[in-house]
Amino acid sequence: MIYYGYSSPEGSEELRNVLSTYLFRTRGIKCHSSQIVITSGATQAFTLLAKLLVNSESEVLIEDPVTKEIPEIFIERGARISPIPVDEYGMQTESISTKRKPSIIFVTPSHQFPLGGILPIQRRIQLIHFAKKTNSYILEDDYDSEFRYLGPPVSTIQGLSPERVIYIGTFSKILSPSLRIGYIILPNSLVENVKTLKRYTDYHSPTIEQVILARFIQGGHLEKHVVKMRKLYKSKRDFLIKCLKSELGDRVKILGASTGLHLIGQFNVIFSKKILDKLENNGIIIYPVEKHALVKGHHINKLIFGYGNLTKVELEEGVRRMKKVIEEELEQNN
Amino acid sequence: MIYYGYSSPEGSEELRNVLSTYLFRTRGIKCHSSQIVITSGATQAFTLLAKLLVNSESEVLIEDPVTKEIPEIFIERGARISPIPVDEYGMQTESISTKRKPSIIFVTPSHQFPLGGILPIQRRIQLIHFAKKTNSYILEDDYDSEFRYLGPPVSTIQGLSPERVIYIGTFSKILSPSLRIGYIILPNSLVENVKTLKRYTDYHSPTIEQVILARFIQGGHLEKHVVKMRKLYKSKRDFLIKCLKSELGDRVKILGASTGLHLIGQFNVIFSKKILDKLENNGIIIYPVEKHALVKGHHINKLIFGYGNLTKVELEEGVRRMKKVIEEELEQNN
Repeated sequence: MIYYGYSSPEGSEELRNVLSTYLFRTRGIKCHSSQIVITSGATQAFTLLAKLLVNSESEVLIEDPVTKEIPEIFIERGARISPIPVDEYGMQTESISTKRKPSIIFVTPSHQFPLGGILPIQRRIQLIHFAKKTNSYILEDDYDSEFRYLGPPVSTIQGLSPERVIYIGTFSKILSPSLRIGYIILPNSLVENVKTLKRYTDYHSPTIEQVILARFIQGGHLEKHVVKMRKLYKSKRDFLIKCLKSELGDRVKILGASTGLHLIGQFNVIFSKKILDKLENNGIIIYPVEKHALVKGHHINKLIFGYGNLTKVELEEGVRRMKKVIEEELEQNN
Repeated sequence: MIYYGYSSPEGSEELRNVLSTYLFRTRGIKCHSSQIVITSGATQAFTLLAKLLVNSESEVLIEDPVTKEIPEIFIERGARISPIPVDEYGMQTESISTKRKPSIIFVTPSHQFPLGGILPIQRRIQLIHFAKKTNSYILEDDYDSEFRYLGPPVSTIQGLSPERVIYIGTFSKILSPSLRIGYIILPNSLVENVKTLKRYTDYHSPTIEQVILARFIQGGHLEKHVVKMRKLYKSKRDFLIKCLKSELGDRVKILGASTGLHLIGQFNVIFSKKILDKLENNGIIIYPVEKHALVKGHHINKLIFGYGNLTKVELEEGVRRMKKVIEEELEQNN
């Protein structure tokens, strides 16, 4: 088999075959390799799907708060964005007006970004009913659910309704974002259109690392790696929670810590620009949930703690400095 | 230096630095590494530039004939395509009406695809004057000029007018299309916008092979490889021309053979669908120039002979079968 010529837009057949087996085994995803299109990371997946499914007449329902880039990709297509508020269990599906006629519903059900909730089965079913009724597609963005620390693996919405759900996966979190390898699992009806778009976007994604990745997965190395990293991240997560509790006590409540590489600290403190700058000047790079909010003002007391690439020493020192800044701030306000 | 995190949209600094030196040495291109954006092949470069420079009000001047995908990328943006006829010296710049107000002029000056002409200096200057007058950009697509068999290397239009010319290069022909690595050399005024578009298209291109490629070039291996392949391709080219001459004599005239991986055979035969099918049924995969023509009917006697990945045995046998098919066809028509 030659890997040096032009390949097909959907990407390496070897990788797509391996993926369909791997995803069934690890995530309960039922799909044939012909439903998979390999993309240059999840970002490209969203760009392609926005191009295919969204125009200036479209409405897109999006979780709020959400990764900043997601709405921007749809807005760039001229779509109208309707934010759906998120609580600690993810998108509040009951608050979706039955009058809405979206083309896309964007959701991160396995680990809402940033708040970290896991969408309950009732809300998932509600979402599928709504999507069927309005003939819209659910975009299921699964960016880090392999790192689940409590309870059994979360199943996918795709598994419940393969014809209404488009599943987007990535290797950025479980391996490396520098790989730029993601994938879309599509209803059969959309496969050909996505291939054509991919063809005219960048022909196909680089072949050689697709084949390397396929063999890495086939050899069981990815699953070993995930198990190893899950242990490592869990111990960092537990340590960070311990530090937050011991330093900040009941000033902070921990949310969304069951999965992934970040957790949310909800404080009895409002994080003004001033206090955030002060944290940054103390060497603490931390993002407020508010930064990701479409409707502002609802999350001004929540911070996103990314712990994946920090050492325990850094975590401990960071929390200590944070405590100092917060207490100085509160004193000044009294 | 870490290559495993997210990188910047413009791509590896190491590769961009190496490229700017390499391109100056080998192609006389004057650019700072900050003017380079690494793309996933040339295809993505065109998609990004179409997105940045073209909308439904735009006019795009394009060589005719041209690679099928190029006009389609601009048409997808809603642009009006104006084909400019090509002769054996490339785009007939003198035939561009002074009334035109294009946003982009697409040209392959080093080796016109498919006809193979090299754009003379007078036409290049004419093109630059026109671009300056109409405030449009010249897209210089250079896909294979490293394989130049006759005379000195062809210089670039970019070198003549770095502020009006956007140069698009690729490693698909000199290394492998499966790499999906191309690059854009931009006027400073456009750099930031292209970076932003790249950011929202696929974040950035995969990092690791960018770094490997940088070191491959830095170590002088790419230039060695090009020299080696140039010899190999030249001997195939010479052999193919010999075969065509000896088998088909003055039925065929060779065009555009000075550079690259293909040449044009101009016949005293009209290649109807019937005869093309017959060639295919004889195991000869060959494309007529007409396939790439925007205005049909002007190139029905020309075939594109790609010889890069064929052995001499295959070339000889192919020409022999072609002769047989052509002569049978001509007999039937008498």
